Amino acid sequence: MEILLTNDDGIYAPAIAVLKETLKDLGNVTVVAPDVEQSGASHSITFNRPIIARKVFLNNTFFGYGISGSPADCVKLAVRELMEKPADIIVSGINMGANIGINVLHSGTVAAAIEGAIIGIPSLAVSLEYSEIPEIKNAAMFAKNIVAHLTEHTISKGTLLNINIPALQKENIKGVKVTHQHAFGFNERFDRHTDPDGQTFYWLSGDGKPSSYGQGTDMEAICNGYISITPLQFDMTNYNALSKISDLASSSL
Amino acid sequence: MEILLTNDDGIYAPAIAVLKETLKDLGNVTVVAPDVEQSGASHSITFNRPIIARKVFLNNTFFGYGISGSPADCVKLAVRELMEKPADIIVSGINMGANIGINVLHSGTVAAAIEGAIIGIPSLAVSLEYSEIPEIKNAAMFAKNIVAHLTEHTISKGTLLNINIPALQKENIKGVKVTHQHAFGFNERFDRHTDPDGQTFYWLSGDGKPSSYGQGTDMEAICNGYISITPLQFDMTNYNALSKISDLASSSL
Repeated sequence: MEILLTNDDGIYAPAIAVLKETLKDLGNVTVVAPDVEQSGASHSITFNRPIIARKVFLNNTFFGYGISGSPADCVKLAVRELMEKPADIIVSGINMGANIGINVLHSGTVAAAIEGAIIGIPSLAVSLEYSEIPEIKNAAMFAKNIVAHLTEHTISKGTLLNINIPALQKENIKGVKVTHQHAFGFNERFDRHTDPDGQTFYWLSGDGKPSSYGQGTDMEAICNGYISITPLQFDMTNYNALSKISDLASSSL
Repeated sequence: MEILLTNDDGIYAPAIAVLKETLKDLGNVTVVAPDVEQSGASHSITFNRPIIARKVFLNNTFFGYGISGSPADCVKLAVRELMEKPADIIVSGINMGANIGINVLHSGTVAAAIEGAIIGIPSLAVSLEYSEIPEIKNAAMFAKNIVAHLTEHTISKGTLLNINIPALQKENIKGVKVTHQHAFGFNERFDRHTDPDGQTFYWLSGDGKPSSYGQGTDMEAICNGYISITPLQFDMTNYNALSKISDLASSSL
């Protein structure tokens, strides 16, 4: 099996090395990841400047390609240029911090998997809830199990899997839930500060928590100690709303 | 009416000035836009560094706030800190270049409207198909008509309107279509170049066209000379795929 591995924490992030080592049991793993951290890069792409790919060596061994671009760029460049054989599956992660709820939209980790799905390759994003001493090996083992159990029909066309793992030791994880995205905003605010010239500047703040977790959501699963698997699609159309705006369309020209 | 106006081409882009002038007929317009171009910023947000907001003057008149962040940052900061009265509507644009198909995911213009929808304010993104001499005034007039015709019930909860206008003179526009997002990739490739040290570097290329336009899509509308209005949602769950992955969930722990 040809596995493409990327992330948004950058090619030197410890978790991608652990995941590479773990996924090696299943096939040939090619790492193509951003050369610096790209957290919050979302689905940005690089089209107005060139992209540089440098070979990265760890412990004097070739580890992968470090890319001067976003996670989505890494997937495009890996598939179109860098991989010698076509990728059978794309794994993005392990991200340090859950990508659930609205954060799905901000995440470079998820965007890389979306890019893979657009290209038409089964893709999954793997994120681990934040903790000071993250259980990276357990998360990597779970990602490996998922990859091993995927069949040709598991992932629908136009869909990717967004996997989030709670920050718990393996024996304390309660199970696996298939969830939908928690689609509500967080409590957020801006902290105000004053610069040396007396001007106000701002820093996005807040506890990152919503007022409710919702039922059957990715957020509810993680907060209750379950692994969450959410099928995401990149067609963002609200099909139920199409009829509502037909009057608007006819009256506005 | 309190109107928040933002974009991803930056506060000095000519189109945002035209749109501000046009929307003034409908109410009070506050401009909060990135201080430099943020095209392709997608839904990136700034959480790991501060954000600076500077007052921008054009022709010795206060024009708006230039923000050291992404379009989504601009919406958050405007709503939470900068606007004196709550925004009744958020308009993002006019983008120079259509935001249709997969480009919806890459667009900072669309992301600003998504951010508005997450906060719970009726939001629309307005983009104009690329041309050398863009018909900005016509596009601005159309955006104004849309805003004027919106009612309390036009935009469903959790939804924003993505509006794209073809690069045609007004009399050549064939009408308005309510569309869904064209959810297929483009023809893309990388051009290869060689740096002064003999190393290969890459530039994302391709004609940006898909192999088909699809039926009822944003892309079909624009390519046939129609204005396109697409209702987009930020819940990316593929609800139809939930049952398909329940077996995977139970077998992978």
